[in-house]
Amino acid sequence: MGKNLDIRVNEQVQIIRRGVAEIIPEEELKRKLKKSIKEKRPLKVKLGLDPTAPDIHLGHTVVLNKLRQFQDLGHEVHLIIGDFTARIGDPSGKSETRKQLSEKEIQINASTYQEQIFKVLDAKKTIIHFNSKWLMPLTLEDILNLAGKYTVARMLERDDFDNRYKEGLPIGIHEFMYPLMQGYDSVVLEADVELGGTDQKFNLLVGRNLLKEYGLEPQVTLTMPILEGTDGVQKMSKSLGNYIGVNEDAYEMFGKTMSIPDELIIRYFELVTQVPQAEIDKMEKGMQEGTLNPRDAKARLAREIITIYHNEEEALKAQERFQLVFSKGDIPEDIPETMVTEKELWLPKFLLEQGMVDSTSDGRRMIKQGAVRLDGEKCLVENIEAKNEMVIQVGKRKFIKLLLK
Amino acid sequence: MGKNLDIRVNEQVQIIRRGVAEIIPEEELKRKLKKSIKEKRPLKVKLGLDPTAPDIHLGHTVVLNKLRQFQDLGHEVHLIIGDFTARIGDPSGKSETRKQLSEKEIQINASTYQEQIFKVLDAKKTIIHFNSKWLMPLTLEDILNLAGKYTVARMLERDDFDNRYKEGLPIGIHEFMYPLMQGYDSVVLEADVELGGTDQKFNLLVGRNLLKEYGLEPQVTLTMPILEGTDGVQKMSKSLGNYIGVNEDAYEMFGKTMSIPDELIIRYFELVTQVPQAEIDKMEKGMQEGTLNPRDAKARLAREIITIYHNEEEALKAQERFQLVFSKGDIPEDIPETMVTEKELWLPKFLLEQGMVDSTSDGRRMIKQGAVRLDGEKCLVENIEAKNEMVIQVGKRKFIKLLLK
Repeated sequence: MGKNLDIRVNEQVQIIRRGVAEIIPEEELKRKLKKSIKEKRPLKVKLGLDPTAPDIHLGHTVVLNKLRQFQDLGHEVHLIIGDFTARIGDPSGKSETRKQLSEKEIQINASTYQEQIFKVLDAKKTIIHFNSKWLMPLTLEDILNLAGKYTVARMLERDDFDNRYKEGLPIGIHEFMYPLMQGYDSVVLEADVELGGTDQKFNLLVGRNLLKEYGLEPQVTLTMPILEGTDGVQKMSKSLGNYIGVNEDAYEMFGKTMSIPDELIIRYFELVTQVPQAEIDKMEKGMQEGTLNPRDAKARLAREIITIYHNEEEALKAQERFQLVFSKGDIPEDIPETMVTEKELWLPKFLLEQGMVDSTSDGRRMIKQGAVRLDGEKCLVENIEAKNEMVIQVGKRKFIKLLLK
Repeated sequence: MGKNLDIRVNEQVQIIRRGVAEIIPEEELKRKLKKSIKEKRPLKVKLGLDPTAPDIHLGHTVVLNKLRQFQDLGHEVHLIIGDFTARIGDPSGKSETRKQLSEKEIQINASTYQEQIFKVLDAKKTIIHFNSKWLMPLTLEDILNLAGKYTVARMLERDDFDNRYKEGLPIGIHEFMYPLMQGYDSVVLEADVELGGTDQKFNLLVGRNLLKEYGLEPQVTLTMPILEGTDGVQKMSKSLGNYIGVNEDAYEMFGKTMSIPDELIIRYFELVTQVPQAEIDKMEKGMQEGTLNPRDAKARLAREIITIYHNEEEALKAQERFQLVFSKGDIPEDIPETMVTEKELWLPKFLLEQGMVDSTSDGRRMIKQGAVRLDGEKCLVENIEAKNEMVIQVGKRKFIKLLLK
């Protein structure tokens, strides 16, 4: 029986460990899992969400996928919507990222979030909290009590504070309160585990320490790596344009996924899909041994992602369209793009304007000869309807991609 | 009329300037005084009081005397009893000085304070506030808003924070809140001037800056020097034993005042009495020119102090008794002291126990011969009633001071 329990704990740990950056400390996680199995009590796994930017991309889903694994192991996910801070914004008025939101905006953002999040998470095992519920009623006494549990020096250890302090850039005293408030969420929740990106490590540890200070069992801190964007270099971010948004259409998701560097394929599988580890390992081996073409692994990755955020049918359709366009010829990686505003195009004129033919009559002749292709298919008519991301090919070498305005 | 106003302002400034360490900035004080005279509106002069240690000594009265001068010029004194912080104590439990007090203790301390304080201040021109009134209802939003008005770097400029930070000693984050709370008192009050010792300069300036941040006219900050104790070297403090308590009896006050070094006489006159400056200047000159014996100046100082905390009659009686004991013979500075528990003493036995006579019969003989003096007066009886601080003298050289338990 004891042995059996240890095996079950280790099975869970193995799944939880996939892709993580750090578990602080892993021994405590094991103890908690053991107790959870013995007492048939799910662990409370916490994630804090900032409702100021509800549009999420694959980078954000790294932690969501980890939460999903906890749910599949029978645990309970607690999402803490940080509506309190969103509601008050930055009191010093100096932070762009902490703009003040109305209650209505927060509600809208929160439901946009949920819509996207429940494509990954199991809604039945997810409990949503708004932290204003317990932060609003705090008195000055409560707050001094909370602030008394942390020292200035420890707070200044946080990288961004440390840097700003050393560079003589201002840090408002209220900024010291935010990590404490986030930690206080864990105290109220009595969280067993808190998740976050590696950039959140400091804040998560504040929560862990505060639980101790309040005489409660400290939370285990689990950090996930920051996902690289489609460029394979910088972190995925909207402002860098290297992101795959979970609300993008299937074809766009497919194309963007196909554009990631081969070295990231396995990392993406591990971090943003639920494909079992054994299959991932097999693919990795296949690519190493040359029995699996990375392009095929990437196509599977793209289908897996689309299946999560749309469905399998859409995934297959996107793949089909993509292959029609890109897989049949020697299509270069970088196709010039051009923006069009009208859907109706007279192709000979358009080709002339793009410098792909010498004259409109030259264009008409190429069409008749079957030398013009739209998304890989021969086009024999002169008037066409433009589609977004449609690739037009003239002869073997000339390509252009339409972007519909 | 304009000239007249300037003259009146300058008259006030001259009185206010007496004995101060710093007025920040004096120009602003002048502007405020001018407006006050024009609009017939008294200035609000603030002093914060900590109700944890209600027993005050002359060192504490330096600011009270300054407040009294403001009152005599027609202004309004606002005493802020810091009952909020006293009520919560130190939430981290690490500070001895911030022990938690019950509401009853705070009330008792506050009335003990008032009793002592109104010996210096004019009760009719004094308004007492308890800051829990406005601090208790603050919400987290209010507090973040307050904290957002100050930076970590500026707070770390405070000497004791700076030292502790550099030495690696902990500073609780809640400690950053106390100067802000004290400053917030000024905001609520819309104080015109705040007083404090030079050790309070940082906190007073926080109040000044906060008023600005809240869009109000900043308070003028007036610091008073820290009074040296009777040893003339260290600051007056109960723990150093160099203090003159305002609740001590007249004779004790007289003796302690007579023990201060001559160099401090003028400083004491300026800081703890209301003797007009012209008279003080005259005494100073007299001592410099040798026409005034410092002992006589000191006796006047002692009488002035006793008159404030007791009355003139007591002052004269104390002087008389003191002169009987000390001024007639060559009484040494340090007389050994002995504690007695019973009031009724058989003098021959007592003198024997103290080693001042060889036997009780020797003692009886000395008394008969008139060689024993009590507080300078010949004692011809064997049974006496002991008084506290009574000096017993046998012959020319043997002295002892009784302390009644």
